[in-house]
Amino acid sequence: MPAFNLQLGRHVGLTHVIDKGLGPRAWEDRLDVAGDHISIVKLGWGTAYVTRNLERKLDVLRDKPVVLGGTFFEVVYLKGQIDEYKQWLADLGLTHVEISDGTIEIPRQRKLELIADLARDFTVLSEVGSKDSSVEYTVEEWTRWLNEELEAGAWKVITEAREGGPAGIFDSDGGMRTELIGEIASVVGPANIVFEAPTKAAQAWFVKQFGPSVNLGNIPPDEVIPLETLRLGLRGDTLKEVLLDGGERVHAS
Amino acid sequence: MPAFNLQLGRHVGLTHVIDKGLGPRAWEDRLDVAGDHISIVKLGWGTAYVTRNLERKLDVLRDKPVVLGGTFFEVVYLKGQIDEYKQWLADLGLTHVEISDGTIEIPRQRKLELIADLARDFTVLSEVGSKDSSVEYTVEEWTRWLNEELEAGAWKVITEAREGGPAGIFDSDGGMRTELIGEIASVVGPANIVFEAPTKAAQAWFVKQFGPSVNLGNIPPDEVIPLETLRLGLRGDTLKEVLLDGGERVHAS
Amino acid sequence: MPAFNLQLGRHVGLTHVIDKGLGPRAWEDRLDVAGDHISIVKLGWGTAYVTRNLERKLDVLRDKPVVLGGTFFEVVYLKGQIDEYKQWLADLGLTHVEISDGTIEIPRQRKLELIADLARDFTVLSEVGSKDSSVEYTVEEWTRWLNEELEAGAWKVITEAREGGPAGIFDSDGGMRTELIGEIASVVGPANIVFEAPTKAAQAWFVKQFGPSVNLGNIPPDEVIPLETLRLGLRGDTLKEVLLDGGERVHAS
Repeated sequence: MPAFNLQLGRHVGLTHVIDKGLGPRAWEDRLDVAGDHISIVKLGWGTAYVTRNLERKLDVLRDKPVVLGGTFFEVVYLKGQIDEYKQWLADLGLTHVEISDGTIEIPRQRKLELIADLARDFTVLSEVGSKDSSVEYTVEEWTRWLNEELEAGAWKVITEAREGGPAGIFDSDGGMRTELIGEIASVVGPANIVFEAPTKAAQAWFVKQFGPSVNLGNIPPDEVIPLETLRLGLRGDTLKEVLLDGGERVHAS
Repeated sequence: MPAFNLQLGRHVGLTHVIDKGLGPRAWEDRLDVAGDHISIVKLGWGTAYVTRNLERKLDVLRDKPVVLGGTFFEVVYLKGQIDEYKQWLADLGLTHVEISDGTIEIPRQRKLELIADLARDFTVLSEVGSKDSSVEYTVEEWTRWLNEELEAGAWKVITEAREGGPAGIFDSDGGMRTELIGEIASVVGPANIVFEAPTKAAQAWFVKQFGPSVNLGNIPPDEVIPLETLRLGLRGDTLKEVLLDGGERVHAS
Repeated sequence: MPAFNLQLGRHVGLTHVIDKGLGPRAWEDRLDVAGDHISIVKLGWGTAYVTRNLERKLDVLRDKPVVLGGTFFEVVYLKGQIDEYKQWLADLGLTHVEISDGTIEIPRQRKLELIADLARDFTVLSEVGSKDSSVEYTVEEWTRWLNEELEAGAWKVITEAREGGPAGIFDSDGGMRTELIGEIASVVGPANIVFEAPTKAAQAWFVKQFGPSVNLGNIPPDEVIPLETLRLGLRGDTLKEVLLDGGERVHAS
């Protein structure tokens, strides 16, 4: 391979990818070109349940941690089938599980017990934040809940940013709740958090705010390479901030 | 395959997929994971005409009904080449045809004759509704036209909802014309209609309004699995409505 | 292959495709169905630099001119590594290069020198226009700069229309700057310009304004076939304008 080295910085940010139903060939192709930049793959909400030949797809993804979406966990909880779910995950060879309460109500104490219980057998990602855009939590609620879930055994906590609509850490106009996010990060520690950032605008915002090593989640598979360029300053949106000290504007005037 | 059964309901809704130019490998991959949930594949508007190796693509799709887009029919009509078109469809092994008048004017009587004529050799899908967002029909016009086309021999009638912009059953703000759609469905019968619903918001709306068995059209290939989860209540958007009786809100307060 | 000939017009418009990270299998598939309609492939901004197995991807694309994105050139310029960049391009077997100054400032005289220098070894595409939506140039600036860059040795000049946001030839509301574009084209000559047109609305606008042979750029790979139908009048958006003389409206009244 011909070499060209721009001597860019390095980063340790997790890229948490959301899959909504790619087939095995598409995943092989994706891993070939972008596998270096994929930390974990979520099969979004209940998509795995309706996917034919799921095992073939999981086989292609065998070198990556795979986790089923939190909304699917919520359905399982509603149906009272958590033990069967654990068995199914084990049978599929999955080592990670996501626990959320973005759509249904799970009492906080129960959620913490579930995290602790599942953490005995799985690496737990737990998500805080409602998918309902009319629900806004305070900084104190966010940080307390995130910390409680980490203490209960979650490996990482995820902040909800519903794809395709403002909710969670986005305000009702779709903008970022800047102050809120800054306070959450400083109290909980950015390394413990995966911030959902499904759009390029949100991804660039997080990279500028927290640097290239921020953990970002719900990245569509075809946005993994573009996100990597945002982290490294190889795209217009973050070029100056990442590559130039101080990020002063150098645009032609 | 490890088994996990949530004992969800079943549905008989058609999922009518719109393709805008996928290649044969992508279709193989899609069918592997989502083939169970695909009822019919439309090669949108005139895309088939400019697709190289079309036969190889059709060969991959041989187990699904394939239909060329209605706008292509309108071009053929304008060019006066309907007989050649029928021959071409037969040569390609296609058994379905779509007839629309969303862009050009075809007198109603002529459209009904065309439906009756093509229904002798093909399964006809006919579409009502203008792609022009300034054109709004009354309930009486919608229901009369849809019923006439069914009587003329159409297998299903499609209600236009132009991708990427409000038209047909969407109002000029892009919202659903709720009352209109309810009346159309009750007069014409929902089983006879395929409602175009290219966006998740529209799909969720139809599932909540008419239940999981509603026939939905113009579903992008990568939205087939997500739509199936909407029908089954495995996604936040319809979880409560599909899985919980009455659909009362159970969100944390 | 069964034949069906609508005797449509022909066009000589370039279709300049932007890739943001497809894998080799996806490109094979794309070329199979749409290869006839792809003139040149740009690996957008710095995506090539973070793509694993880049040579395998380039091997699939060997029959098309491939160019790396202009923003990547800007990074290379900032880093002072233009000679290494030229060597890398040559080692990769690339024959085209893009030069832009949409994000960083390059003095005009320096940009013209760079174009002249690189044009000795490569076919140069140079881009005018800022990615910053607050920057608006006058017609006189646009035409002077475009002409200067052609005189310096650029094969084609590209007018910036930032994907996902208004900039360059779009006004701050995202609309086309109609008069501006008309004047630019008449002074510089449409055959010398590639107009970036990432959305269907922009593509249809250009086809209606300049005819099917307009050169269009930043076309996503899965929009190549749809664009070809727009050029030929096989989609509702341009059917009347392309297929019917005068383009008078023939819609049902």
